[in-house]
Amino acid sequence: MSSPERPIAVGFIGLGIMGAPMARNLVDAGFAVTGYNRSRGPVDALVAAGGRGASSIADAVAGADVVVTVLPDGPDVEAVVAGDIGVLHSLRSGALLVDMSTVDPAVSRRMAALAADFGIQALDAPVSGGQQGAIDGTLSIMVGGDADAVAAAMPVFEALGRTIVHVGPAGAGQTVKAANQLLVGGILELVAEAIVFLGKQGVDAAPALRVIAGGLGGNTVLDRKAASMLAHHFEPGFRIDLHHKDMGILLTAARDVGAVLPLGAVVAQQFVASRAAGDGALDHSALLRVVERLSGVPVH
Amino acid sequence: MSSPERPIAVGFIGLGIMGAPMARNLVDAGFAVTGYNRSRGPVDALVAAGGRGASSIADAVAGADVVVTVLPDGPDVEAVVAGDIGVLHSLRSGALLVDMSTVDPAVSRRMAALAADFGIQALDAPVSGGQQGAIDGTLSIMVGGDADAVAAAMPVFEALGRTIVHVGPAGAGQTVKAANQLLVGGILELVAEAIVFLGKQGVDAAPALRVIAGGLGGNTVLDRKAASMLAHHFEPGFRIDLHHKDMGILLTAARDVGAVLPLGAVVAQQFVASRAAGDGALDHSALLRVVERLSGVPVH
Amino acid sequence: MSSPERPIAVGFIGLGIMGAPMARNLVDAGFAVTGYNRSRGPVDALVAAGGRGASSIADAVAGADVVVTVLPDGPDVEAVVAGDIGVLHSLRSGALLVDMSTVDPAVSRRMAALAADFGIQALDAPVSGGQQGAIDGTLSIMVGGDADAVAAAMPVFEALGRTIVHVGPAGAGQTVKAANQLLVGGILELVAEAIVFLGKQGVDAAPALRVIAGGLGGNTVLDRKAASMLAHHFEPGFRIDLHHKDMGILLTAARDVGAVLPLGAVVAQQFVASRAAGDGALDHSALLRVVERLSGVPVH
Amino acid sequence: MSSPERPIAVGFIGLGIMGAPMARNLVDAGFAVTGYNRSRGPVDALVAAGGRGASSIADAVAGADVVVTVLPDGPDVEAVVAGDIGVLHSLRSGALLVDMSTVDPAVSRRMAALAADFGIQALDAPVSGGQQGAIDGTLSIMVGGDADAVAAAMPVFEALGRTIVHVGPAGAGQTVKAANQLLVGGILELVAEAIVFLGKQGVDAAPALRVIAGGLGGNTVLDRKAASMLAHHFEPGFRIDLHHKDMGILLTAARDVGAVLPLGAVVAQQFVASRAAGDGALDHSALLRVVERLSGVPVH
Repeated sequence: MSSPERPIAVGFIGLGIMGAPMARNLVDAGFAVTGYNRSRGPVDALVAAGGRGASSIADAVAGADVVVTVLPDGPDVEAVVAGDIGVLHSLRSGALLVDMSTVDPAVSRRMAALAADFGIQALDAPVSGGQQGAIDGTLSIMVGGDADAVAAAMPVFEALGRTIVHVGPAGAGQTVKAANQLLVGGILELVAEAIVFLGKQGVDAAPALRVIAGGLGGNTVLDRKAASMLAHHFEPGFRIDLHHKDMGILLTAARDVGAVLPLGAVVAQQFVASRAAGDGALDHSALLRVVERLSGVPVH
Repeated sequence: MSSPERPIAVGFIGLGIMGAPMARNLVDAGFAVTGYNRSRGPVDALVAAGGRGASSIADAVAGADVVVTVLPDGPDVEAVVAGDIGVLHSLRSGALLVDMSTVDPAVSRRMAALAADFGIQALDAPVSGGQQGAIDGTLSIMVGGDADAVAAAMPVFEALGRTIVHVGPAGAGQTVKAANQLLVGGILELVAEAIVFLGKQGVDAAPALRVIAGGLGGNTVLDRKAASMLAHHFEPGFRIDLHHKDMGILLTAARDVGAVLPLGAVVAQQFVASRAAGDGALDHSALLRVVERLSGVPVH
Repeated sequence: MSSPERPIAVGFIGLGIMGAPMARNLVDAGFAVTGYNRSRGPVDALVAAGGRGASSIADAVAGADVVVTVLPDGPDVEAVVAGDIGVLHSLRSGALLVDMSTVDPAVSRRMAALAADFGIQALDAPVSGGQQGAIDGTLSIMVGGDADAVAAAMPVFEALGRTIVHVGPAGAGQTVKAANQLLVGGILELVAEAIVFLGKQGVDAAPALRVIAGGLGGNTVLDRKAASMLAHHFEPGFRIDLHHKDMGILLTAARDVGAVLPLGAVVAQQFVASRAAGDGALDHSALLRVVERLSGVPVH
Repeated sequence: MSSPERPIAVGFIGLGIMGAPMARNLVDAGFAVTGYNRSRGPVDALVAAGGRGASSIADAVAGADVVVTVLPDGPDVEAVVAGDIGVLHSLRSGALLVDMSTVDPAVSRRMAALAADFGIQALDAPVSGGQQGAIDGTLSIMVGGDADAVAAAMPVFEALGRTIVHVGPAGAGQTVKAANQLLVGGILELVAEAIVFLGKQGVDAAPALRVIAGGLGGNTVLDRKAASMLAHHFEPGFRIDLHHKDMGILLTAARDVGAVLPLGAVVAQQFVASRAAGDGALDHSALLRVVERLSGVPVH
């Protein structure tokens, strides 16, 4: 993808909570990173950290070997990638496009097909692990696309995450991310229901959850989140608003293929309720507050 | 509870799939175990293993320091404990009654109050870990009751399990067991939904679940059950019929105290559907077949 | 069942909100009614209205041709009918027992089998129509039992209700009542969800519900309850607490036969939530308040 | 809107199952109707019935006083109305645009705002009543938009429907239609659950539903659909596929405003299951088959 003499050139678009530390990790790993963001502040920060700044998408992707996008939602990706002044109109044929946003698998498949028309290979590579994982470079990355493109992007992925799995063709990365969010959201809600049930039964939840954690009901939410949930600390972490968006992606993708999700559908409504109560900016473990309100428990 | 010269005398009632290996472990640990069962075969097997056999409840509990009951359901416990020819009418005052069945917390509280009238301390001590855990003596035991009674029963518990947690007063053991079954059943259903979703999206579920297992969605069901679910192997393990019974206990106990369980209620219906399809004798991971049928996936 | 010269003798047990006006309607229709109630006040009121008072169950049913019971729940019926000083021990063989309480179909079937041992035919005949229907004698009565017993009880039913349908053997009356409560509770919840959805969309619900009422979505809840729901008037009517009890009967009966109720299960949780919020004494249309709370709508 | 000497000119776009009879009713009522459809057959049929045929959208709307669109889904409406060769580019300023499709309220609001830029007033006017209502001119029409535009369109509406209600500003018609589909779909599912419950309890559903229909649980689905459901006749009527689309509109619109729909979400999954089983072309009352499959009832 590049001669040994010069570093791989990465155009990086989207320097938000996740994108900013990811771009910096690429700088630190020796990539030549040119960053673009709608607002100027994060670009300046990247420059201060050793990257280059771009004033437009075209500017960011000109001469890039790889373009990485980390954007809020599907329409953003469609605009940035396929818009009139978007990535595909400026990126050289033969380069690689890696979208690390979480969007509908159908968007990823559309972008991949469109990119192919421009001679560009596209990967969808959404991540889990949150802001801390982005900072630490320990993200899990679920990659969809062609195997040779995955191999080519591997140096980039290795600078960003610890678990990198090629899960299938275009869109598959998003599909796995959606399934991940089903499990995370569902288990958060189950733990919330268990906590409320135990509390209303007058049982101290902390030792109870400890014994449950040792058996078939054990899970990472119990290990990492139960203590803060019991303490009613809901600093994000991963925001209700974002998980709500992801549940929408999941249910749309499931509808598209006729997968029935009896629990997934209910969990999605709990996220709607959480936002309706004004909790959208809290950590997703704040689903506990929805169950507490439903059960008449005073909510802190 | 006993002089050092003579072993603790245990009356053991209910020598089924769980009870039989538990009683044998007590024999092996040096307790003087007298076993009773409605059918004679398991009693003979216990005698062959070094226990004593009883021909009635009264016979089993006469002279016992501790009585252990392992019975199918709440009405069985009420009959065996409180019936006209039941435990309380034959057990000496000052002895200990340990019910290790999974029943409604309200039953446990009733039995404990009734036992107190006879000068007997009662514990509810349901277990998780399944038949294998009973055989290996590695059960998790969730104990409800008074602390001094828990201390007195500890030698018995230590012969049966590895994780022993005193979770609260009478009934609390059952409450925690019910919460455990909510988490186990709920996570099984979520994994089933994820598998069907991934499959319908054309994504290979095995690597997908592996990457999910490494993140916040990780759980013991993925570790222990995903492979057999993907292979459609549903030998129990823990039967749908039994988990269905436990979901009934959970929902009744939640109703009693006004705990709303949006997911728990849906999971319970999936168990009803599983039994209605004739899958009651399969392992509880056979919830996968319910989701497959719902989604029009050919079911193996 | 009686000679033309003397009126039919009715023993009436349970003079509550429903029972009291029903007993009075029987008095007015010319039956010789002897009433019994745990508290004395309603008995005195019945005497003042032309009935006779009894001081015990035995006293109420001695000499009766028909015994009518209107009691809160299944355990009450079991105690009053089958208890040591219950109806069956005092009622003459050949008489008729009509239980008009709403209970689990399994209780009705048990009572019918037990009554048969005493040479007594039993009917389960739960009603709908509420307190006003009881006062006006316009109840709907769903009757389970043998056809000849239904024919024999018809004069009693005709004094109490307008729609009297023999729906099947013992327990069938209760089954139909449970199905009725599924539809009523479910439609109340659907109307509540529609009202909240319309309100949050900024649409005036009153004309909207009017046009819906004219199409396939039309229903009696819209006709009778929508106006009071929109005005947030929740005077019972039929109390949340009672409908909650009935949802429990429905779900237990459905479990027993393997009928999956995806909506029924969710509706039942909404009733749990309503009670948990302290709304148990309100009219069942107060499910609206549950949906409002979930959606962050200020609740009046 | 037009001089008395000449008839109102209507451009009619979308001559499908609903649109074709609607256009014909306008012809019969004396409007000068010019019809356009993607395939030519329905245009010829309209011409044979006394209308005029158009070979393009521009052709259909040139000279029109009112344009009526009856299209499958939101993207169709956006393309036909706002596309490069769409309605707005050819329709004269001051004319009226009436979209009678069922689409997301947000689409209707967008189209109305866009139309205003062209000096055109737009109404959203989705209908209920099905193909038969379209043929008979007895549709219910839920109209969103400005009052003067509604008044101007009234002659058109009166040729098409019987119940015409102005429910609010732009988008309100769609919102009410979505609420209508929530009630219709939800009640169909409740009736299906009741039928399966009664059947599994061994109770003849026909008389049972009759008595329920007389009380607070009474509804139009019972009146019009119960007999065909009990006979397992599922000829549409209104297809599962279409109601599935409408549930998607409902849930998206509810998400947008933070309205939680616990029952609506579950009903939507039942439609997904129905389609996954291959029942998409059946009448929406075929939800019965989903509940039957879930409950292990042989499905006809």
